[in-house]
Amino acid sequence: MIDLDRFEADCQRDIPLLTAMQLRFVGYDELTLTMEAPLAPNINNKGTAFGGSIASICLFGGWAVSTLGFMDNGIDNTEIVVFQNDMTFERPARGLLSVRARIEPAEFETVLARLKKGDPGRIRFDVHVDTFHDDERCATMRGVYVVWLK
Amino acid sequence: MIDLDRFEADCQRDIPLLTAMQLRFVGYDELTLTMEAPLAPNINNKGTAFGGSIASICLFGGWAVSTLGFMDNGIDNTEIVVFQNDMTFERPARGLLSVRARIEPAEFETVLARLKKGDPGRIRFDVHVDTFHDDERCATMRGVYVVWLK
Repeated sequence: MIDLDRFEADCQRDIPLLTAMQLRFVGYDELTLTMEAPLAPNINNKGTAFGGSIASICLFGGWAVSTLGFMDNGIDNTEIVVFQNDMTFERPARGLLSVRARIEPAEFETVLARLKKGDPGRIRFDVHVDTFHDDERCATMRGVYVVWLK
Repeated sequence: MIDLDRFEADCQRDIPLLTAMQLRFVGYDELTLTMEAPLAPNINNKGTAFGGSIASICLFGGWAVSTLGFMDNGIDNTEIVVFQNDMTFERPARGLLSVRARIEPAEFETVLARLKKGDPGRIRFDVHVDTFHDDERCATMRGVYVVWLK
């Protein structure tokens, strides 16, 4: 059972930019992490959400959802880093950001099986992160992450 | 002649995340903007620079270098937004981030000529942003931005 509040507190302590962005976790379930951030600390000179804040939340979300996914399967000694990402900014976000990071279950199971066998290699996997405001999608990210056992 | 200090102050006022990241301008010359940010406000749980901070600085850098480039050519009524970007995180950054955002002169001249003719359309262009620590490149971004006249 994941202690999401504790994980969130650890992340806030270790990554000061999360506090600056007032990012908070909404929930984690079945390889999907939802988060929210208010507009004010993430605003830009156009009065909309700064693309850098959106990218930052998406990149963190990819790391966090995969860390949580492995923890939820009893593996808490992973090292996970982002390797590449690509984003599309579809429309401006004019208020509260709602962000959903998810891993495809089939891909996750493949990576999980290799980790459980003690695979010493660095294993790539994709994370998909969508950012919404008022149920309209504002940005989408695909991130390529690498995981290995510490 | 560009007043870089004033432009930096305006950006810091309008985009609070820049202050949180302690981003500062080093210089602008010939379509290249250099910036720096210390590690402490941008650190992650591994003691290296948070990928989200790097992405955020790169995305801002792309907007800033193009805004400055057009200003330097007498066009200060541009609206510039990022449309897409892709990044590669090559190695961890373990200290001060040094970031260089640049536009290829030939591409810039093409866009500039269209803006000077009063082209009412939305014009795409690329920006390249490299992030260094101790002269080693840590990350690279290609951003696709769109500019139009307000």
